[in-house]
Amino acid sequence: MRLSRYFMPILKENPKEAEIVSHRLMLRAGMIRQQSQGIYSWLPLGKRVLDKVNGIIREEQNRAGAIELSMPTIQSAELWQESGRYEDYGKEMLRIKDRQDRPMLYGPTNEEMITDIFRSSVKSYKSLPLNLYHIQLKFRDEIRPRFGTMRSREFMMKDAYSFDLTQADAIHSYNKMFAAYLRTFARLGLRAIPMRADTGPIGGNHSHEFIILAETGESEVFSHKSFVDFDIPSADTDFDDVAGLQAIFDKWTSVYAATSEMHDEAAFDAIPEADRLSARGIEVGHIFYFGTKYSEPMGAKVQGPDGKEHLVHMGSYGIGPTRLVPAIIEASHDENGIIWPDSVAPFDCVIINMKAGDAACDAACDRLYAALTKAGKDVLYDDTDDRAGTKFATADLIGVPMQVIAGPRSVASGEIEIKDRKTGARETMTIEAAINKLVG
Amino acid sequence: MRLSRYFMPILKENPKEAEIVSHRLMLRAGMIRQQSQGIYSWLPLGKRVLDKVNGIIREEQNRAGAIELSMPTIQSAELWQESGRYEDYGKEMLRIKDRQDRPMLYGPTNEEMITDIFRSSVKSYKSLPLNLYHIQLKFRDEIRPRFGTMRSREFMMKDAYSFDLTQADAIHSYNKMFAAYLRTFARLGLRAIPMRADTGPIGGNHSHEFIILAETGESEVFSHKSFVDFDIPSADTDFDDVAGLQAIFDKWTSVYAATSEMHDEAAFDAIPEADRLSARGIEVGHIFYFGTKYSEPMGAKVQGPDGKEHLVHMGSYGIGPTRLVPAIIEASHDENGIIWPDSVAPFDCVIINMKAGDAACDAACDRLYAALTKAGKDVLYDDTDDRAGTKFATADLIGVPMQVIAGPRSVASGEIEIKDRKTGARETMTIEAAINKLVG
Repeated sequence: MRLSRYFMPILKENPKEAEIVSHRLMLRAGMIRQQSQGIYSWLPLGKRVLDKVNGIIREEQNRAGAIELSMPTIQSAELWQESGRYEDYGKEMLRIKDRQDRPMLYGPTNEEMITDIFRSSVKSYKSLPLNLYHIQLKFRDEIRPRFGTMRSREFMMKDAYSFDLTQADAIHSYNKMFAAYLRTFARLGLRAIPMRADTGPIGGNHSHEFIILAETGESEVFSHKSFVDFDIPSADTDFDDVAGLQAIFDKWTSVYAATSEMHDEAAFDAIPEADRLSARGIEVGHIFYFGTKYSEPMGAKVQGPDGKEHLVHMGSYGIGPTRLVPAIIEASHDENGIIWPDSVAPFDCVIINMKAGDAACDAACDRLYAALTKAGKDVLYDDTDDRAGTKFATADLIGVPMQVIAGPRSVASGEIEIKDRKTGARETMTIEAAINKLVG
Repeated sequence: MRLSRYFMPILKENPKEAEIVSHRLMLRAGMIRQQSQGIYSWLPLGKRVLDKVNGIIREEQNRAGAIELSMPTIQSAELWQESGRYEDYGKEMLRIKDRQDRPMLYGPTNEEMITDIFRSSVKSYKSLPLNLYHIQLKFRDEIRPRFGTMRSREFMMKDAYSFDLTQADAIHSYNKMFAAYLRTFARLGLRAIPMRADTGPIGGNHSHEFIILAETGESEVFSHKSFVDFDIPSADTDFDDVAGLQAIFDKWTSVYAATSEMHDEAAFDAIPEADRLSARGIEVGHIFYFGTKYSEPMGAKVQGPDGKEHLVHMGSYGIGPTRLVPAIIEASHDENGIIWPDSVAPFDCVIINMKAGDAACDAACDRLYAALTKAGKDVLYDDTDDRAGTKFATADLIGVPMQVIAGPRSVASGEIEIKDRKTGARETMTIEAAINKLVG
C-alpha cells in the first residue's frame, strides 16, 4: 500500500479526550474515530489490526471444534421475555420500536437467540456436542462509555454457545474454550490469567474471566505470581481428549487468582508474601457454564440415548476484539508509539523513502516494494513528500514491526537500513540482503 | 468438516412461507433462519457462501483502489439533520432513542457519516482521489420484507464513497467502480447488465443499477440483447487509465438498457424486434455520482492547487451481499437443489460415505478427506449413518460442485465415483486418481 494513496489521518497533537495511552495512540495513529459517544469508526489502519485479531480468534475457535454462523444485531423482545431477561437487563439494553410498533432490541448478547435456533433444529443427543459462535456487533448502552474502544457502546464480540447432554459433557466443552482462550491470547502477544469470576447478568455457577495486567485496567485482581511460567496449550492439542483438557484446566486453576468481586482475603494471605500479585487488569474474555438456565424456560431439549427428553446443558464464551486491540497497545508501546506483535501488525514492514522524487531512492524503494509484496508481505510504502523526520515519527507511532529506510546517501552505495521497531536495533545492508531477511 | 460434527439443519419439507426458489432452497439447505420479520441468521453453510461473496467483492474493491474501513451501525440523528435527510427518509429509517434520550438511528446508508469522516481529516487536493468502503450491516424498515434475504430489513451492504476535486475526476472514480462491478458479478458467476437508473433517496445526476435477469425479479427491465457478448474487464485492467476505463463504460452503455422508471419506449422500439429484451431482473448493485449534494450542506472542502477551497465531488457505490446469495441461486439451480459456481461454493467437494461403519468405506473416505484437506480444499465429509439416498439428496440440495461417492462395492475394487453436480456426469476412478483430479 502506497501511503500517498492510503487513508491514515495521523494527529500531530495529543487528543484531549483520551485518558489512557491506548486511546491516545489509536486516535493519533488514525486507527479509530469517534462518531457519537461510545460509538467508533475503525479507520483503515485500525480495521487491519481488528481483522487480524478476529482471524486469530476464528482459527482458535475452529481448532477447538466451534462452528461459525452469524446472528443478526436486531432481536425481538419476545425471546427475552421467554427467558425472563427483558425486564432484568435495565437501561443498558437499547430498546427499539419498529414501524409496526413491535418491541425490538439491539442484542447485548445472544443466549436467547442461539437457544431458539438450537431448539428449532436439534432433536437428538446424536447432534451433540455442539458449539456455535459468531463475531458480531453488540450494543450496551453504558452510562459512562470511556477509554475509546476499551469500553464503548457499540462493540464487537465473539460469542460462542455450547450445548451438551450432561453436565460432565458441558464441563468438557467449557475446558475446550478455556484452552482455546489461552492459545488465542498468547498468539495475540498477551499473557492472560484466568480468574474465578462473578457470573453477572449471564448467570450460572462456573465462570472465569481472562485478565491481562495493565495499570489502566478497570478490574482489581489478586493472584499468585506463578502464572508467567505456565505452558500455553500447543497447536496440536487434542480437543477431544477429556482428561488432557481437564489437566490443562486444573493446572491453570491450581493457584489463587480472583477478581475483587470473588476475592478471598484469607486464601490470598496464605500465599507467601513474595508470590502475591495485587494489580489492576483488563478483562479480555469471559466464559460461563450455566447448565439449564436458558434451556429450561425456553424448552431446549434433546432425546437422550434412553429415549427420554433432556434439557441441554449450556455455556457461553465471550471475547471482545474491539477491546483486545487497545488492550494489546496497553501491553505493548513506548514513548514513541505502538509496538505491534507480529501476529496482529497492520503491516509487516514500512518502507521509508527519505527523499521521494530522487530517482535512486525511488528506484530502490520501488524494487523493495515490488519484491516484498510479491513475497506476500503486507507492506506500507511511505512515498509521500513529507520530511524524513515526520516519516520516522509516523513509522514509530503506527508500530509496524520492521522499518526499511532508504536515504540518498546509503542508496548511492547500494544499501538501505533496517530498523526493528521493538528493539530499536538498526542494521545497514544491501537491498538484496534486506529482501532476503524480511521475506525470511 | 465432518458432517457429524457440523450444524446444517436440512429441512425435508418445503417451507410454506417461501414464495421464490432461492428462499425455499436457502431454508431447506439450512443456510438461513428467520429470527423476526425480515431479520435472518446466517447458519454455518450460508455464512460460508456469504464470506466467499464478500471476499470477491473485497478483492475487486481493493483492485480498483478503494480502501476498507468499518463504520458503526448506530448513527447520531444530528448528522442526518445536517444533510437534510433526517425528515426525508420516512418510516424506513429505524429511529432510536438512547438512555440519554438522544435521537439515534440504525444506518440505512452512510453518505453523511463518511462525509463527516472526510471533512474532519482531509484538507488538501493532494489526498485525492479517495474511495473508502465498508461491508457493514444496514437496516431499512421495509413495510413488506419478503423473499428471505432478497429483501430483508437487516441486511449487509458493501458501500463505497468516492471523493474528488473535480467532476471529471469524479467520473473517473465512477468508471473505476463501474468496471469493478462488472468484474465482481462475473466472478460470482452472474451476467449483470448496467442500466440507467433513477437516483431515489441518494440523489444525484448519474446513476446505474446492475441487474441480473431472473423471472422472480422485482424490477421490470428493457434492453438490447447484445450484452451477453460484451467482454468483462480483465484482472490486469489499469484503473489509473482514464481513457481506458471510459472506453469500458462507453462500450457497456452503448446499447439501450433501462429499468421501468427510466424506460424510454421510443428508444426501445427503435431496436430491431429480435434484439429487444423485456424481462424481469434483480438489482444487485447500484452506483451514483451526486456531485456536491452532501459536501455542500456538510462543508466538505479541500484546498485546490489554486490555493482556494473547493467542495468535493462525491459518488457512492453499493452492492448487497445478502441479496447476492439468493440472486446467485435464482440464476443457478435445478429441481434437486442449488448449483454453486466454484467461486462461492461453501465447500469444494463433498465426500459421501455410503456405508459409514464399514471398515473399507471408512478407510477410503478417511484417506480422501485427509488428502484433499491437506491440499487446501474445503471438504465436507458426510460420515453420518443416514441412508445413502438421503446423503445423495442432501449433496444435490446444498449444491457443492463435486461429489465423491464411496460405496462398499466400488471400494472393494479400490475405486470410488465422482459426480459433477452441475452436469450430472459421473466417473469411476481409483482413489489416487480422484485425489489428483480434485486437487487439480
